Amino acid sequence: MANEFDTIGRYFTRPTPQSELGVGDDAALIKVGKGMELAVSADMLVARTHFFEDVDPYKLGWKTLAVNVSDMAAMGAQPRWATLSIALPKIDEIWLAGFSKGFFACAETFGVDLIGGDTTRGPLTLNVTIMGEVPTGAALKRSGAKVGDDIWVSGTLGDAAFALAILQQRLHATDDDLSLTRKALEQPEPRVSLGLKLRGIAHSAIDISDGLLADLGHILKASSVGADIHFDSIPRSSTVSHHLHEKPLQAMILAGGDDYELCFTTPSDQRAEIEKLALKLGVPLTKVGQISAETGLRVWGSNGQELDIKETGFDHFA
Amino acid sequence: MANEFDTIGRYFTRPTPQSELGVGDDAALIKVGKGMELAVSADMLVARTHFFEDVDPYKLGWKTLAVNVSDMAAMGAQPRWATLSIALPKIDEIWLAGFSKGFFACAETFGVDLIGGDTTRGPLTLNVTIMGEVPTGAALKRSGAKVGDDIWVSGTLGDAAFALAILQQRLHATDDDLSLTRKALEQPEPRVSLGLKLRGIAHSAIDISDGLLADLGHILKASSVGADIHFDSIPRSSTVSHHLHEKPLQAMILAGGDDYELCFTTPSDQRAEIEKLALKLGVPLTKVGQISAETGLRVWGSNGQELDIKETGFDHFA
Repeated sequence: MANEFDTIGRYFTRPTPQSELGVGDDAALIKVGKGMELAVSADMLVARTHFFEDVDPYKLGWKTLAVNVSDMAAMGAQPRWATLSIALPKIDEIWLAGFSKGFFACAETFGVDLIGGDTTRGPLTLNVTIMGEVPTGAALKRSGAKVGDDIWVSGTLGDAAFALAILQQRLHATDDDLSLTRKALEQPEPRVSLGLKLRGIAHSAIDISDGLLADLGHILKASSVGADIHFDSIPRSSTVSHHLHEKPLQAMILAGGDDYELCFTTPSDQRAEIEKLALKLGVPLTKVGQISAETGLRVWGSNGQELDIKETGFDHFA
Repeated sequence: MANEFDTIGRYFTRPTPQSELGVGDDAALIKVGKGMELAVSADMLVARTHFFEDVDPYKLGWKTLAVNVSDMAAMGAQPRWATLSIALPKIDEIWLAGFSKGFFACAETFGVDLIGGDTTRGPLTLNVTIMGEVPTGAALKRSGAKVGDDIWVSGTLGDAAFALAILQQRLHATDDDLSLTRKALEQPEPRVSLGLKLRGIAHSAIDISDGLLADLGHILKASSVGADIHFDSIPRSSTVSHHLHEKPLQAMILAGGDDYELCFTTPSDQRAEIEKLALKLGVPLTKVGQISAETGLRVWGSNGQELDIKETGFDHFA
């Protein structure tokens, strides 16, 4: 049924230069480039499950698209188009203005046309389906990791989980600690340029949304291999490092999730290449371990002892 | 965050023969045929806004996909792929088994691969993004109606609104009345074959989800034309006809919505062609009026008098 929610479509109607037909018909029309495959992914965000209802709508708009863009980065795909469906309890023009501004800020940063979607009354729920292009056969999959591959991680891990813990008052920290980490939680920067450059180099890739252990675990399972990683090698911000003596920090780094960094594996003869790439893109890329023939995922501490990762909450994901 | 809801993905993992890579990576991969455009559309269904929470999950699964398939039909596109995102208050295996069975029954009927999506905790909400193929330049748009075009409607209108009114006890009717009309409400059959055959014949098309007046109104607006339609010409089932003396019936036929029939316009020299098509497809196709240069939408009664369509609720949509 048509209703007053249809009128809020105007907040989400912007030019769609990459599309044959944008918002306003029964469907949008797009053309996929010659020799290209279309990568397609969807993520649903629900108030109170995934975000606080009173979160800044601009940041929520950014993040709603960014977590989907991150899936394109993980496939080595160029994000191009998206649909957005929103259920809202009531029409709140200030919220809509902020949310749409954040969404389009992210869309413009990563070159995404919003080509369609739906708006309706209901408990606050957001769904994006994103589409991107990748040359046929060049996509980075979870299933390509080989024994002996180096395991790499971009950026730093644990910041988002750390900021969330402060906001939820599960962790005591300074205002500075929060201000230095909350951008990771609220406005993640998906690693699209990195994903594109990893085509033809990486054997496998995934974005870290559920935490390093869970997401690397997906690579291991899909590739039928195991891995050894070194806890001290895992990149973390100086803010998180300062709190490392506190009990939950280890779990935040290994399994906190919401990082939207890439974890990928490459043949070990590509090490110099990856280091050059880090400099070129200005993105920290850190080798955290190696793929092994022995299945399972082992995390080693600085004392040469294996960490008991059950405590990190990884067992929930295994 | 990964959670127990990820495990219900198994209900939604079936072979995806039309796809390069299906469910289970950061994105699915599909190839759009040479010379084809991709038509993309999304619809979100929310419990209590769009359906009763206790509706038969099989029927809900069917309808969730069917309303999206109907958008492909309206574009003259062949439905091919879909993503499905579900928020659920709790994991209910019986509900999931029924819902997924209904969803895949519709998917198989219309040749759709389910290639991805998301499952999470939240108030019951469903979102489908559907993708279909249409030869470049051949899509049926809302914007092509020409002065003098015949206006056609497939099937019958008002049955879904009639069944809904009975279920909501807003209308008194027999059990037979309900059983003869509730399939239109709960398991609509989108007109995909008709949409495909209308390529190159119809000047414009739309699917009737918000009611004939609202949806024809979209064609008129997009095409900058007007229309005259004849109430008595509008096809309705014998069940609905029997109740025509009751006050709300006129509004149900004109503006009830949820019909998922096609409304399309063709040059008047195509009349014999459309009648042949109706026979060939076994789908009633009825001429209900004509496109005019005078803007606005006028509905004429059997006495030659114009109906006051404000009473139908059309003013909400105008």
